[in-house]
Amino acid sequence: MLKGVITVMLQPNVLDVQGQAVEGALKHLGFESVEQVRIGRQIEMILPTEDHEAARLQLSEMGKKLLANPVIEDFQIDIKEA
Amino acid sequence: MLKGVITVMLQPNVLDVQGQAVEGALKHLGFESVEQVRIGRQIEMILPTEDHEAARLQLSEMGKKLLANPVIEDFQIDIKEA
Repeated sequence: MLKGVITVMLQPNVLDVQGQAVEGALKHLGFESVEQVRIGRQIEMILPTEDHEAARLQLSEMGKKLLANPVIEDFQIDIKEA
Repeated sequence: MLKGVITVMLQPNVLDVQGQAVEGALKHLGFESVEQVRIGRQIEMILPTEDHEAARLQLSEMGKKLLANPVIEDFQIDIKEA
């Protein structure tokens, strides 16, 4: 079994208003030095296979078809032993 | 400069309804073998320091004070060179 992790972030050129709100809140709490806060989603799942290449291909398809919006988001794939 | 990444996930014993919905959608799309889909948040930020220990401490405080709900969520910290 493998653990697949897909991390979806807004593309760098897309304004991240949620990140800006969190940055404001962090500064307000005393973390004045934080910069460029950006917020994304992490989707974890178990894949009942030992084939890393097949898992990567499947995760990439999931990202393209469902988990990320290709117009404004990028995603990244990590595979670990479950 | 360092890049701090905080990943917030629901605690393993907490029901993840969003994850269940995504798992259903993935199975419906033909990814029948996926299991235990869970969804979390990833918060990235730039910290203008080179001190890894200080950065880790600061990120841990941010997680406890603002970014995670300690009753139902766990968070994990990663630090990279920005």
